[in-house]
Amino acid sequence: MKKILLSLICIPFLTMAQPSEDAAVIKKIADEILRNGKAYEQLYELTKQVGGRLAGSPQSVKAVEWGKRTLEKNGADNVFLQECMVPHWVRGGQDKAEIVIINKKKSNRPLDVLALGNSMGSGGTVTAEVLAVADFEELEKRKEEVKGKIVYYNQGFDPTNVKPFVSYGQTGIYRRSGPSRAAKYGAVGVMIRSLTESTANDPHTGAMAYMDSFPKIPAIAVGPRDADAVWALSKQSSFTLSMTTYGSFLPDAVDHNVIAELKGSEFPNEYITIGGHLDSWDVNEGAHDDGAGVVHTIEVMRALRAIGYQPKHTLRFVLFANEENGLRGGSKYAEVAKEKGEKHLFALESDAGGFTPRGFSIQANKEQMAKLQSWLPLLTPYGTHEITPEGGGADIGPLNRTFGTPVGELFPDPQRYFDLHHARSDVFENVHKRELLLGAVNMAALIYLVDKYGL
Amino acid sequence: MKKILLSLICIPFLTMAQPSEDAAVIKKIADEILRNGKAYEQLYELTKQVGGRLAGSPQSVKAVEWGKRTLEKNGADNVFLQECMVPHWVRGGQDKAEIVIINKKKSNRPLDVLALGNSMGSGGTVTAEVLAVADFEELEKRKEEVKGKIVYYNQGFDPTNVKPFVSYGQTGIYRRSGPSRAAKYGAVGVMIRSLTESTANDPHTGAMAYMDSFPKIPAIAVGPRDADAVWALSKQSSFTLSMTTYGSFLPDAVDHNVIAELKGSEFPNEYITIGGHLDSWDVNEGAHDDGAGVVHTIEVMRALRAIGYQPKHTLRFVLFANEENGLRGGSKYAEVAKEKGEKHLFALESDAGGFTPRGFSIQANKEQMAKLQSWLPLLTPYGTHEITPEGGGADIGPLNRTFGTPVGELFPDPQRYFDLHHARSDVFENVHKRELLLGAVNMAALIYLVDKYGL
Repeated sequence: MKKILLSLICIPFLTMAQPSEDAAVIKKIADEILRNGKAYEQLYELTKQVGGRLAGSPQSVKAVEWGKRTLEKNGADNVFLQECMVPHWVRGGQDKAEIVIINKKKSNRPLDVLALGNSMGSGGTVTAEVLAVADFEELEKRKEEVKGKIVYYNQGFDPTNVKPFVSYGQTGIYRRSGPSRAAKYGAVGVMIRSLTESTANDPHTGAMAYMDSFPKIPAIAVGPRDADAVWALSKQSSFTLSMTTYGSFLPDAVDHNVIAELKGSEFPNEYITIGGHLDSWDVNEGAHDDGAGVVHTIEVMRALRAIGYQPKHTLRFVLFANEENGLRGGSKYAEVAKEKGEKHLFALESDAGGFTPRGFSIQANKEQMAKLQSWLPLLTPYGTHEITPEGGGADIGPLNRTFGTPVGELFPDPQRYFDLHHARSDVFENVHKRELLLGAVNMAALIYLVDKYGL
Repeated sequence: MKKILLSLICIPFLTMAQPSEDAAVIKKIADEILRNGKAYEQLYELTKQVGGRLAGSPQSVKAVEWGKRTLEKNGADNVFLQECMVPHWVRGGQDKAEIVIINKKKSNRPLDVLALGNSMGSGGTVTAEVLAVADFEELEKRKEEVKGKIVYYNQGFDPTNVKPFVSYGQTGIYRRSGPSRAAKYGAVGVMIRSLTESTANDPHTGAMAYMDSFPKIPAIAVGPRDADAVWALSKQSSFTLSMTTYGSFLPDAVDHNVIAELKGSEFPNEYITIGGHLDSWDVNEGAHDDGAGVVHTIEVMRALRAIGYQPKHTLRFVLFANEENGLRGGSKYAEVAKEKGEKHLFALESDAGGFTPRGFSIQANKEQMAKLQSWLPLLTPYGTHEITPEGGGADIGPLNRTFGTPVGELFPDPQRYFDLHHARSDVFENVHKRELLLGAVNMAALIYLVDKYGL
């Protein structure tokens, strides 16, 4: 009785899902994935047989081959490659840094560091006094002191942000713009505190970008425990750092988005995109970032096919190229879609790790948000408790900006993500099988509802 | 405007929380714990300096001393010990089992096993043919074949249960009663599949209990990968197993609940209990089970004191003795409370691990549940998305059964819990600092609300 009443009340406002039928289909999807899911085994292949796969690297070519083959084997109607040119940054050697102990050369204290992605090598070793600042505000105040020094930014995550992605949003600018903002005042190198709250000392790389008007000085991230030591030292005395990096750009390389389709029965020319990015940093296996998103994408396709689901719209499963240091794959996908005049109903990305799902973050208008949120009761049994307007994924951003397509991103439990993100520890062993599979369950369920009811 | 309207509607039904004031206090609690929380460092002490602490062991005595000292140091008004007698089971040696390869004695296949807690040693090595059954139903059907054999139960977790605690509820009976149910038909030993879905091969111990009417045969749990091998082998041929265990009971030992109080300003004789259990299994550090619950308990007290909160009711912080193989601590606590005619308003336990909180599971009446659920909007910013009627914790069960006290348990993300539960891998290194602290945040917030508004 209660159910009927609820439906009567809500029908005037929304095209309502049919709770019991939809719950049954979603349960079928979930059971299929939790019993027979292949995502974990596929992630093993991608991380252990392909490995780290930065855009332009030999492994990125292998990853495209693996992606095409794996999509073909798992039920795609068709698979094709979409060519795009990508930047080809290489680390070039083992990044090094150490605190120089004056008069005791042999006891220099080595720091665990990684050059920032896209940064230029130091051209030999750069040795200079360190100016340690808390943030850009302090840098501006002390700009007269910068010349000839290595600037160290100590900006860390705010522990009172319950969601670490908020902290990443607040501090990411130190990695991206910190080097040029220091070079502007004559710095000869930059070191940042790694963007993490991890209790381990792994340094975390990630993309930076130089401003053209200032010298391209070398830039590194230091592990958080070493960062604590550097910061403490800076409060006691002046000290010198020497840093050695080898980064450089080779000519742009050919790369590919890998795209599979399940053809729509009613609206074959209307697309729903599901994706993750195939590239990763060079220092790890890209297991959570974004191997998880890649195998989520493939698993959603496999499971929908396995239960015999016939989509109304054409579902596109896209393994994007070059998210990490260029976003060329995502840009190309939207560019081609525009050229072809494609109609894109919705796009969903997984690029926040393979941890237990907690919800989705969405960029959509009010009516679309209301419709998505009306489906929450169907998703909560699988872990989705919130659908928030916090934004969609990086690779599908261009689709949103080109067409206004509503976009979303899986929001897994975020507490461990920045322990591994862009660090050596982002390896297969740190991914949990059931957590990974549950991500695919929630994504497949949402895609089923969007395909059935539109947005 | 909307807020006011909502308040007007709801006031007739419930004593309403004052959202903005309460939100501010809870934010203060959360900030205190996330910035200055001591739970992680205390867990390091408990796991690394005290170690595994099964009831009756020398470490359990050290744990009581550590608990008393740590509660005293962290702001308790008073700390006292509540004596209780506990069973004193000892493992007695290194449990062993191997598949005996007939005619090739030297290539026997060893299995990774642990004797079940409370089980009796094999008295030398027991070697017998294996009867492998899927479940009790198959055992009953094949009861004529049992005599003289070792029964192996292959019952595992159902992967389609999204919450692994449901699977544990379904399969736990094989560990607890499997040995006697096989002994009834003449089995000479029992081996169970470990109660886990882990991809690792660690065996998982845990309490069993013999029925007095049947022989006390030895009983072991085998790691899940070995279990797969045993089950596959049983489908191909008959085979023999030899098992060696050393378990025995020494005389009951003296143990203690460790109890700290923050005295209530308005209702000093009405109690709210917050607790976890101090004992653990002998094979690990009891980091998640239940070191996490212990340090959650201490952290809630520390944080409420640190922000200067003056409770209305007396808050009791209890580190319970002997949850794992006797529940004597929890029983004693309720027994003494009854003798003294104490009034218990609410009890909250943490005994499901130190992972990111997702909610609370509660045993309470309808009105109490409604009141608790009305507080959800205040808790969701910290991770609590559901307050379900799935029950409270083991140690506070006796309080509920004695007085009808409503009880609750923190419900952290459950996917990794049974990878570690009662296995060697339940060590400090597998606990995540922020996940652990967030558990204390949600517990402290709920206790604040119950103390302020009653239940």
